[in-house]
Formats: sequence, C-alpha cells, structure tokens
Amino acid sequence: METINDLLGYEDIKIYQNPEMFSFSLDSVLLPNFVTINKNIKNILDIGTGNAPIPLILSTKTNANITAVEIQKDVYALAQKTVKINNLENQINLINADIKQIYQTMEPNYYDVITCNPPYFKVTENSNLNKNDYKTIARHEVELNLDNLCQIVKRLLKNDGIFALVHRPERLHEILETMTKYNLEPKKIMFIYPKEHQNANTVLIEARLNANKGLKVLPPLIAHTSDGQYTNEIKQYFK
Amino acid sequence: METINDLLGYEDIKIYQNPEMFSFSLDSVLLPNFVTINKNIKNILDIGTGNAPIPLILSTKTNANITAVEIQKDVYALAQKTVKINNLENQINLINADIKQIYQTMEPNYYDVITCNPPYFKVTENSNLNKNDYKTIARHEVELNLDNLCQIVKRLLKNDGIFALVHRPERLHEILETMTKYNLEPKKIMFIYPKEHQNANTVLIEARLNANKGLKVLPPLIAHTSDGQYTNEIKQYFK
Repeated sequence: METINDLLGYEDIKIYQNPEMFSFSLDSVLLPNFVTINKNIKNILDIGTGNAPIPLILSTKTNANITAVEIQKDVYALAQKTVKINNLENQINLINADIKQIYQTMEPNYYDVITCNPPYFKVTENSNLNKNDYKTIARHEVELNLDNLCQIVKRLLKNDGIFALVHRPERLHEILETMTKYNLEPKKIMFIYPKEHQNANTVLIEARLNANKGLKVLPPLIAHTSDGQYTNEIKQYFK
Repeated sequence: METINDLLGYEDIKIYQNPEMFSFSLDSVLLPNFVTINKNIKNILDIGTGNAPIPLILSTKTNANITAVEIQKDVYALAQKTVKINNLENQINLINADIKQIYQTMEPNYYDVITCNPPYFKVTENSNLNKNDYKTIARHEVELNLDNLCQIVKRLLKNDGIFALVHRPERLHEILETMTKYNLEPKKIMFIYPKEHQNANTVLIEARLNANKGLKVLPPLIAHTSDGQYTNEIKQYFK
C-alpha cells in the first residue's frame, strides 16, 4: 500500500511512503530545521534515514553532499524512488547497509554534520518484539542503540563537527551522558510540546565533537493549537 | 543597609534583606512552588538557605518541620530575624553551619524533602574571587559544589525522598550526571525563560532517591512580558 505525498510543509518535495513500514513524522521535519547548516558544510551523513525525509529537507538548505544510510532493504527502495522523483540523485547518496557493520570501513573524521532520528525505545527482556517488523526496527533499539550511535558518530565526525539528534525527553539524561562519554559536547537543546500546558514529548539536541562546554536551551516550541492544528510558530519553524 | 520587604507575591511574609550580602531572587520563589509537597511530608531540609525565602514559602504550603542550614553568620542572623518576625520559630529550625562539616553527624535517611538554591558558578583557576565576600559564597562553588551537594543529599534523604534544585541550564548535563551518580533519579524538569523567544536562564529539577527512570519535562514558564512585567503565568505559579 505505497503512496506518494507532499512532505509536510514542503510543497515541492514528494515522498514515497508505505504505512505498513512507517511514515515520516513531525520529528523528521523538525530535525533538519534545527540543525546548524552553513555554507562551509560540505558533507552530511544521515543515519537510519528511512524514506529519506531528513536528506530531502536538508537539500532545500544546502548544496552539501548528503550520504544517507538505511538498514532495511524495502525502506531503502522507497527512499531510492523518492530521491529519484525529486531529481536529487546527484546530491543524496543512499546506502543500504547496517551502519554498525560499515562505519569502520568509512573514512574517519570526514563529516561536517551527522543527523539521526534513531529508534526511541530501549529493548528489555519484556519487550516481546517481532524483530522482522519494519516498525520495530525503526522504533526499538534492536539494531542500533544510543551507545552504538554515539560511538559511530564520534568516529565519523570531523573535529568540532555537528551531531544533531531528535529523541524523547524521558531519556534526556541518558542521551546527555552518552554524548559526553563520546566527547560529543551538547551545545543546544530545544523541547517540543504537543500543546500548551502539556509536557514535552520531543527533544532536539545538537552536540559538537570535542567542543567547549556551554549548553543553550532554546525557546520552547508548541506544535499544535488546542483544536489540533499546527501552530503558526511551528509553520514558521519549517521555513 | 538592612531593609525589610514583602516576599515576592506573598504579602503576608516579611523578609529581612541586605543588598550588600544578597537579596532573594525569583529562583528562590520558584523552587518551593515547584517541589512536590504533600501531607505525608514531615521533615524538610533547605541547604544554603540564605535569608530563608524557601523555608518561608514552604511554610505556607505544609506544616512539616523545616531545617535550614546557612554557612554565613551574618546572613544566618538576617534569616533569624526574618523567621522571628513571621512567627515561624516553631516550624523553621535555622542552623548556622557548613553542611559539609555537619552532615555526617546528622541522622541519615531522615528527610522527606531536601531543597537547594546552590551556588551556580564553577570555580576555576581564573575565577579570581574574593572568598570573604558574601555574594561570592552564595554564587560561586567555593564552599559547596554540585558533587558535594548530591553526596550530602544522598545520605540525608529518605529512600524515594525528593530532592529539588534550581540551577542554570548551561550546566544541565553535569547536574543530571551528578544526580545519577548518587542515585538521585531525575523525575521532573521545568525550564524558565526570561521572556518569549529567549533562551532558558533557569532550570528546576526534582529527583527521587533510588527511584525508577521516567523523566518528565513540564510545560515551559515565561517569566516576563516584553515590557518587563511578570507574566500572568508566573503570578499564577506562585499561588
């Protein structure tokens, strides 16, 4: 049941989706709008790219080369179709691989920016997951956990390079601790609140490899009005 | 140059101040309004109480016994006058001591709640501080640092007891890491933004000793309107 959609807020971008695998989420739109992008950035890596929403949006902001790695073959095939229909084959280089298997063969200290919308949920003995399910791999840390991710990022990122992550606030202290463990110094954080007067459900974090301390907590972002529409604030954030 | 003032938002509370030592801040009003207080709470400790704004506000919310420790003799004297003029000698027990020197003589695992508005700034070789200055001791970690504090709290707090701290967001990951080191599990966080569209300048954190993981990021609080008045939001927060 494959569909083709506009990418949220981006009328010029088409994206292939398959709800049985997963659909891109608001998180994947927020992250490429949050990460620091400037003209000095030449090489970007997106880990666990899914159907490639993050590279697609980054392509509207930069001419940098974007490498995007996706472990799942069928999801990768969707991403390929999406990149092709948007005529972005020259800018976005898709790789169908397990980043854990290939990162040691990749050039170290190469990327200016690494982005990731990782699996959010820890796997415990009680998780009782179907490991062959597309959504399980995207959402649960069966193939890649936070420690793996930060270790990989540390190796592939340039000195003072940027790592931008979207995650759940419930795991904030674990995220900050793991980043710090791998010399990824947290520099800015933004919390996303689904509606006014509700707790944050999303956190965006940008770290820099081997940077000085100095964390900024950016103004909060409220996603929806009380009647469930996107707020003007969030629509502006996409531009 | 001693003065007597209403405590911000609390018309019934008087507080002695001396601007040469320091004045209570918004932070000291936010913390006792943030910390979880219920009728099961019997014993509260406030570390580094200054002129006692936190115990004063807590006294409007609970009948629990409040012990408040202040290292500086002249500041402690102000706190004594303040407690007396508010007729709170029976509820608030002030101690003039260095908590680092006395905590091992205090009963362990005794307090249901510990609050602290600690010194915010790290001391480095370049800090060039006058260690005899009242404000230096209140603001800089010359007498008590974050690690000391969490170690003390771990010893004095009951199992599952509450530790509530106000601090600067710049040190968020260090705070969370230090709490975790001493089994103080962060359970709720609130960021305070001085004005709309500005970065957070204050963070309130509540942890519980030996509790399960599960952090909530509460809705943001904006302190001032664009013309510098307190927002309605913050006035309501005090009630």
